[in-house]
Amino acid sequence: MGKRIGKNTIVFENKPRIINFASVCGKKEAQGPLGDQFDKVFEDTTMNESSWEKAESRLQTEAVNTALEKANLKSQEINYIFAGDLLNQCMSSAFGLRSLGIPFLGQFGACSTMAQTLFLASSVIEAGISDYSVAVTSSHYCSSERQFRFPLQYGGQRTPTAQWTVTGAGAAIIGNSGEGPYISKATVGKIVDLGIKDVNNMGAAMAPAAAKTMLSFFEDTKTHPSEYDMIFSGDLGEVGSNLLREILLKESYRLGDNYNDCGLMIYHKEEQDVHAGGSGCGCSASVFCSIILRKLREKTWNNVLFMATGALMSPTSCQQGETIPGVAHLINIRNDL
Amino acid sequence: MGKRIGKNTIVFENKPRIINFASVCGKKEAQGPLGDQFDKVFEDTTMNESSWEKAESRLQTEAVNTALEKANLKSQEINYIFAGDLLNQCMSSAFGLRSLGIPFLGQFGACSTMAQTLFLASSVIEAGISDYSVAVTSSHYCSSERQFRFPLQYGGQRTPTAQWTVTGAGAAIIGNSGEGPYISKATVGKIVDLGIKDVNNMGAAMAPAAAKTMLSFFEDTKTHPSEYDMIFSGDLGEVGSNLLREILLKESYRLGDNYNDCGLMIYHKEEQDVHAGGSGCGCSASVFCSIILRKLREKTWNNVLFMATGALMSPTSCQQGETIPGVAHLINIRNDL
Repeated sequence: MGKRIGKNTIVFENKPRIINFASVCGKKEAQGPLGDQFDKVFEDTTMNESSWEKAESRLQTEAVNTALEKANLKSQEINYIFAGDLLNQCMSSAFGLRSLGIPFLGQFGACSTMAQTLFLASSVIEAGISDYSVAVTSSHYCSSERQFRFPLQYGGQRTPTAQWTVTGAGAAIIGNSGEGPYISKATVGKIVDLGIKDVNNMGAAMAPAAAKTMLSFFEDTKTHPSEYDMIFSGDLGEVGSNLLREILLKESYRLGDNYNDCGLMIYHKEEQDVHAGGSGCGCSASVFCSIILRKLREKTWNNVLFMATGALMSPTSCQQGETIPGVAHLINIRNDL
Repeated sequence: MGKRIGKNTIVFENKPRIINFASVCGKKEAQGPLGDQFDKVFEDTTMNESSWEKAESRLQTEAVNTALEKANLKSQEINYIFAGDLLNQCMSSAFGLRSLGIPFLGQFGACSTMAQTLFLASSVIEAGISDYSVAVTSSHYCSSERQFRFPLQYGGQRTPTAQWTVTGAGAAIIGNSGEGPYISKATVGKIVDLGIKDVNNMGAAMAPAAAKTMLSFFEDTKTHPSEYDMIFSGDLGEVGSNLLREILLKESYRLGDNYNDCGLMIYHKEEQDVHAGGSGCGCSASVFCSIILRKLREKTWNNVLFMATGALMSPTSCQQGETIPGVAHLINIRNDL
């Protein structure tokens, strides 16, 4: 049985294990600094499908099937799949995973979804009701742009604070035994809304929620940033990650060189013209399910924080003049030493 | 610790308790057969908000706050809220619940979401990481019509197989101790897609998934429909519930007079012109969190099955010629006797 510590952090006593993982990405992501870290790269991001939404669905299928192959598991051995994406009615997840025959639980936490799926996949393990569960999320630049912003053909100018939606997916298999890094603790975030309305500045909208979740974790565990090998935020980008540093510093927590943001890691900032960095469910998912889990598996890192952040807006809410609520969930992954 | 029985059913050994619950509805629902069962009724379904989406958010706020009041609990005492709805990016949930300060986990299972939230709220209790969690879902006729079908002003003719989206919400508080009915078992469904494309016949699209989940539960538990006081499906409506009966009968499971569908219970079929019945996340949520839980609490019923069913489509998927995948999750609620 797990337990609660402090106000809002929990400890998984059964050590839900990350048995294996996989990431798949598009061409632009393959040209970034992590290009050699992904399991599969699709040069043509239509993936020979008839729509971008179907291509995004394929990203999820590929990520899950690759993770299953690497783990030498069949889909029938998986008890639950926790899956989410940014599209209306989580379309990429439902259509990408419908043929797998795995009990399906759709998740929506915007770009925080990867941490949410990891938390829930671990919770059903901790509850004793699952041997293996899968956590998967995706995003696709083209399906996101046309749903949330403009038709690609319009060629809209992007602001300096805008982020670039990652075309990619990541899947992790969580098991109740076995080898590999385990999910030790988690802090599920509350919704925080400080009134940001600029849909081209998601980093600023998400930073207060990110800071709240991270502070809550440090206070509950009585630890400091310097005690972790690495600390990753999901896709705050340049604006959001600087804000996170600032807010934490005011509370006397200094994020040092062991802090990075998946949105800043996935692209070459200058050459790839991504402005404030990468974003989307697929950003933190593909970075987590490639370099982060690989370095944990190799025991280069043994105690890592992964916090994915989401902006819970919809085009409708923005059109109706609403502000952008943020949310962030944090997972602590460790190795047996 | 919970355990798995058969192929796809789990038993919660810690007896997650339904501490309290609340339902809120609109005018049309109040005029139906269950009119006197709801905690709050809003005659003006705009709820004095400036949009239908904001009105739907208010339904969630009202349902959760009413449930908390009835349970004599404060929002700070709740560890997690599992919330979902049908709108793009689960907008009603995020905006309706952002001010509550409860760690938020957005869910999307279309109209199956109420059972999904109940399953997950029970799982975190079973895992020992929650004292109280809330499960809540909503739908609103006007926000759904304009998102999924036509502008209301268009006055489109509805087909005989079409269902009427319920304006309502239901919230249940699940606790790790206390009195009241408890969640004993659950079967989380797989996605089933038999190729139905008619968006005006959701009952037919969902029935195969409903049958698969229910068969799985009966086989895993080695029980028969006649052993339960009542069996409820979410919102299969007339077409879907007849199909469910037929499919189960072929497998030698007869659904008798102890079976009903929330979509058939909430409206007077003839007088209220709802065609095949009610639908929407708010349909099963408001029926479950009113008459079903009330009769369980009074011990009129002591062993009940509640299976919510969802059609995992989006307007985009339909426009792209996709079929409609269905999913259904089943919960067994019991009383100590």
